[in-house]
Amino acid sequence: MKTVITYGTFDLFHVGHVNILKRARALGDRLIVAVSTDEFNQDKGKMTLVPYEQRVAILEACRYADLVIPEATWDQKRQDIVEHQVDTFVMGNDWQNKFDDLNDLCQVVYLDRTKDISSTAIKQAVLVFKQLDDVFGE
Amino acid sequence: MKTVITYGTFDLFHVGHVNILKRARALGDRLIVAVSTDEFNQDKGKMTLVPYEQRVAILEACRYADLVIPEATWDQKRQDIVEHQVDTFVMGNDWQNKFDDLNDLCQVVYLDRTKDISSTAIKQAVLVFKQLDDVFGE
Repeated sequence: MKTVITYGTFDLFHVGHVNILKRARALGDRLIVAVSTDEFNQDKGKMTLVPYEQRVAILEACRYADLVIPEATWDQKRQDIVEHQVDTFVMGNDWQNKFDDLNDLCQVVYLDRTKDISSTAIKQAVLVFKQLDDVFGE
Repeated sequence: MKTVITYGTFDLFHVGHVNILKRARALGDRLIVAVSTDEFNQDKGKMTLVPYEQRVAILEACRYADLVIPEATWDQKRQDIVEHQVDTFVMGNDWQNKFDDLNDLCQVVYLDRTKDISSTAIKQAVLVFKQLDDVFGE
């Protein structure tokens, strides 16, 4: 029984999230997804469009996520890895080498992000749509 | 083996989608989700932020969707119901009574929508965030 864990915000659930969850899940038999709480995001100066409870509900509906847990602090990772007997820690390669220190506890893997897709890109697309709408009408 | 079917656009996948898929799935043993193609949306004068292939990939990752098929025309529903031996046709109650004519083929059920959540509401929230950002942010 190989356990994989990943961490993220998962605002505006998109195909890039699906791809990374699917690939992370395929690295083992069980995938734990740690989702940043609204308070943790606030500490980081970030704000999501989708509140924590909804981000959790969407991930719990994803067939690749076996367990969803809260990410509430930067330094809970070592404890999560021990507590859940994690074999592989996965992040997108926008975090390349940032978590190599966890190598003493488990395997650390960085996966390619899906090209051109992010929550930020979706927000920008909404703005472009709004402008088109302003120009061309509904 | 009871088969349920529902139809939708599923742009900007949100917890309202999850709720209706979960409740639709619970009405039977198998849920078919028909997703409007980009061409069909164009015919309707609608445009999605998320292209068809990505909307399909997100739904296929949803544990409540057993089969995802394209919705390409208004009048394919009767054929889908017969072809897939559908027992129950489900839509959100924003379509209340609009598909009662399908009652001769299968059960027709309208489910409550999740309060205050829609793709449109998310798009509006992006715009509000943008304005806040213009006022307060970087």
